[in-house]
Amino acid sequence: MDLHGNHIVGAEESADGREEFFGVDPATGRDLAPPFVEATQSEIDRAFVAADEAHRELKQVPSAKRADFLDAIAAGIEALGDELLERASLETALPLPRLASERGRTCAQLRMFAETVREGSWVEASIDHAQPDRKPIPKPDLRRMLIPIGPVVVFGASNFPLAFSVAGGDTASALAAGCPVVVKGHPNHPGTSEYVGEVIRATISECRMPSGTLSLIQGKSIETGVALVKHPSARAVGFTGSLAGGRALFDVATARPEPIPVYAEMGSTNPVFLLPSAFDGDGATSLAAGLHQSVTLGVGQFCTNPGLIIAMKGASTDSFLTKLGDLMSGTPAGTMLHSGIRFGYEDGLARMRHIDDVEEKVQGVPYSGLAEGDGRCQVHASLFSTDAETWLCNPVLADEVFGPTTLVIQCEDESQMQLVAENLPGQLTATIRGSVAELRAKRELLATIEDVAGRVILNGFPTGVEVCASMQHGGPYPATTDTRTTSVGNAAIQRFARPVCYQDMLTELLPDALKDENPLGILRIVDGRKTREGKVKT
Amino acid sequence: MDLHGNHIVGAEESADGREEFFGVDPATGRDLAPPFVEATQSEIDRAFVAADEAHRELKQVPSAKRADFLDAIAAGIEALGDELLERASLETALPLPRLASERGRTCAQLRMFAETVREGSWVEASIDHAQPDRKPIPKPDLRRMLIPIGPVVVFGASNFPLAFSVAGGDTASALAAGCPVVVKGHPNHPGTSEYVGEVIRATISECRMPSGTLSLIQGKSIETGVALVKHPSARAVGFTGSLAGGRALFDVATARPEPIPVYAEMGSTNPVFLLPSAFDGDGATSLAAGLHQSVTLGVGQFCTNPGLIIAMKGASTDSFLTKLGDLMSGTPAGTMLHSGIRFGYEDGLARMRHIDDVEEKVQGVPYSGLAEGDGRCQVHASLFSTDAETWLCNPVLADEVFGPTTLVIQCEDESQMQLVAENLPGQLTATIRGSVAELRAKRELLATIEDVAGRVILNGFPTGVEVCASMQHGGPYPATTDTRTTSVGNAAIQRFARPVCYQDMLTELLPDALKDENPLGILRIVDGRKTREGKVKT
Repeated sequence: MDLHGNHIVGAEESADGREEFFGVDPATGRDLAPPFVEATQSEIDRAFVAADEAHRELKQVPSAKRADFLDAIAAGIEALGDELLERASLETALPLPRLASERGRTCAQLRMFAETVREGSWVEASIDHAQPDRKPIPKPDLRRMLIPIGPVVVFGASNFPLAFSVAGGDTASALAAGCPVVVKGHPNHPGTSEYVGEVIRATISECRMPSGTLSLIQGKSIETGVALVKHPSARAVGFTGSLAGGRALFDVATARPEPIPVYAEMGSTNPVFLLPSAFDGDGATSLAAGLHQSVTLGVGQFCTNPGLIIAMKGASTDSFLTKLGDLMSGTPAGTMLHSGIRFGYEDGLARMRHIDDVEEKVQGVPYSGLAEGDGRCQVHASLFSTDAETWLCNPVLADEVFGPTTLVIQCEDESQMQLVAENLPGQLTATIRGSVAELRAKRELLATIEDVAGRVILNGFPTGVEVCASMQHGGPYPATTDTRTTSVGNAAIQRFARPVCYQDMLTELLPDALKDENPLGILRIVDGRKTREGKVKT
Repeated sequence: MDLHGNHIVGAEESADGREEFFGVDPATGRDLAPPFVEATQSEIDRAFVAADEAHRELKQVPSAKRADFLDAIAAGIEALGDELLERASLETALPLPRLASERGRTCAQLRMFAETVREGSWVEASIDHAQPDRKPIPKPDLRRMLIPIGPVVVFGASNFPLAFSVAGGDTASALAAGCPVVVKGHPNHPGTSEYVGEVIRATISECRMPSGTLSLIQGKSIETGVALVKHPSARAVGFTGSLAGGRALFDVATARPEPIPVYAEMGSTNPVFLLPSAFDGDGATSLAAGLHQSVTLGVGQFCTNPGLIIAMKGASTDSFLTKLGDLMSGTPAGTMLHSGIRFGYEDGLARMRHIDDVEEKVQGVPYSGLAEGDGRCQVHASLFSTDAETWLCNPVLADEVFGPTTLVIQCEDESQMQLVAENLPGQLTATIRGSVAELRAKRELLATIEDVAGRVILNGFPTGVEVCASMQHGGPYPATTDTRTTSVGNAAIQRFARPVCYQDMLTELLPDALKDENPLGILRIVDGRKTREGKVKT
């Protein structure tokens, strides 16, 4: 497939703008052909006109057909073969095996949501039959279910060019809910975005879905993103990226004349609490190996990267620190996704260095071992250590540094460890490692980290996010802007729906999910009882 | 019971402030003893210290005990007897029979949430068992459920001094979710608030619940409300009231360093579409009678009051307008809740009068028939009429006028009626009246009003909000600030919870809802299957 560099607005290619930008090979710093065109306001307007029309049309599309459409997108992505992975690798420096596994996850997500839609109970249908003889006033017939919220804006994430991008989890869950999507492709993998956008365009046509079901808007400027969020037709926003970016979009969305929800997953420091018994036996060695792997995986570019490690002062922690330091300093340099992330990493390390009593155990950037002309995206892993008091007095040390680095916080005693937990900002995950006996005695610490985290991990590592019904990928601010939701797993579909109640509606005008005979065979609440049975109105 | 006029901060009375205010009898304009004290920042801080402590303690309280607590509050409110209703009537001018029925609703809500908590499935528990042998990587054990979000700020509403006030739907659903509550009593019924606050204080003590489970903060100033929403410990806000008030709190909450959700139900105009067949037979007469009752019920002080009636131009509508006008002008004057609402009504009518081609069919205020010295809260019902073009050109005519008034919009043809529907702001309800044959032909209109409303009513009237699982009391902005939620019915509990996932957690440290043996007997998703069964881990 030849890349065209244009937007996909409804079913049409468009390139009205004059500003151009390129994907960049982060390993070399060289521009990658073709040029891509920055979107104009008129293209954004047309994308939403198409989305509004698709929203109306999608209401008539049976859920089974929507499920087939999601499956067909997955098949279409797979059919692109290695060409997709090669372009993605060029644009992101992510290795092919990682991208192959990410493609697997992307397609599995699409199929999971297809299954959710096909099964159908996600609409939370509820029926209360009329009681015409009730005193003092009759009870009307009331039926409630979730319906699509309307056009959704999705921002592709730089660190998952497939799984959190054009056909990633946000898009898949929004389409599954029955919403049209306007995707803003991430400017650092525009070619990958176009590949996937073209697959969806072809699938829309093959499956005879409304042409405005998905538009792909390319752009590098902040203004393009803001224009999408400000558009009066936008009804919700999905975003994965930095705290600064997510908060800016949240502020734009909440200041609109009609505010809309923003589901921004903005990462976190994913603290790992090491109770003393975590070092028992060869604990220090295996912990150092496990944490090293979790911190440096994918050049540290995961939102579940463990950026804080909290342990007690003492010989065990000293030994652990030495081992972890050896592993970190022996880690080969890695190429980050793009120069913005590379400079963000450098700024983060500089921020740490500025604080007295923070020790730089292993130096990241600038690092003498890096070659010239490497696209300025190559970095080394780094390691910092400090004491709990310093951490508590310097809230900046609680901020995420996106990249292969972590900060070990050494506590004087248990109450100081508890104090660190109480002062953590919101987190996607929090991990605690220790023996059963120690954990039994640490219920207070557990309760505290449960209050700040979306996922509480026992004796594991935070990286690795399962896609399943029980996953919670979210957490209190600043991990996300909406702690009530998840961006991974079946429940992500709920973000793009709203309840509506029909009172005394004609059966033939009711959605199938709410008809007495239950033609979809879904689980519903009927007169207070959960059932899959159909019921003849009495 | 003698009213003390103080705040209830945790379990303690407090009155540190110097500013005083009084409840006012709206029928006479006279102050009602005793004086109430405006809250200080230090009292607000203490309420949240108590709430934070209660939040930690409530995690250890079994759900059955929480349910008993809700039931006991209901019993305590009933035990107050007529004394409560008499004070409420003095402060609001609402008649005793209405308040008796509102008390019934308040207690029924508390008991409904007690039942929801006792049944227990509302936590949406989900279990995915580990697959240690899965390739390429093992699957961990993952378990997800809803947990309380933390301290909730509830603002009492003026128009429901019991059902949407200190122990109203927001408080009941927040307590049911396991959250402590800091209630801001409405300044126009401080005595009623204190009665109910004292019942809850006594019930907290009897049921041995944490003393900070509920605090009652009294205050008249905007600053007091803002201070509650800004408090770092506040985790969510429930509000029922005006658009201006709700939006102001939403703006404060979203501008916080850590934004928190605001569930503001801000009313709407509840449009009623009259298709031509609605006038068939004696339709014009019964419609006029039904709408008159719905518009003037409780001096028009319901958020589901029908403020817009859309019909076709013609003889039937003329006849209907005449009949409705006769009924409206024959309606006895009524006393509104307080002078602020009375002046808001007057301002709303003045806004309508300013627009050319809006005809004032029946004059509301100022009205010559009103007696002097009536507390300035007495008003007459009013009626306006205009054509669709005028309505479409004057967006201010889509704004709610809170009180016993409605605006009839006359359309030239069906496409103009459709255009009116497309230009409606978000609504709590939208009603359509017509024959089966007509409705079949009006699917487009139905789809359009479904998009703007939380509840779609066929051949009924919008006033009257059932409390049940299938109720949706919410809707797109400006009806509410969060269209994904309802403030009435069982689902209201979901607003005050957030999901958390436990990975590889020890069984003894898991909440009962997530233990394999399912000790609570709740409906869960276990390895993708919905079941009430316990399951031995394989």
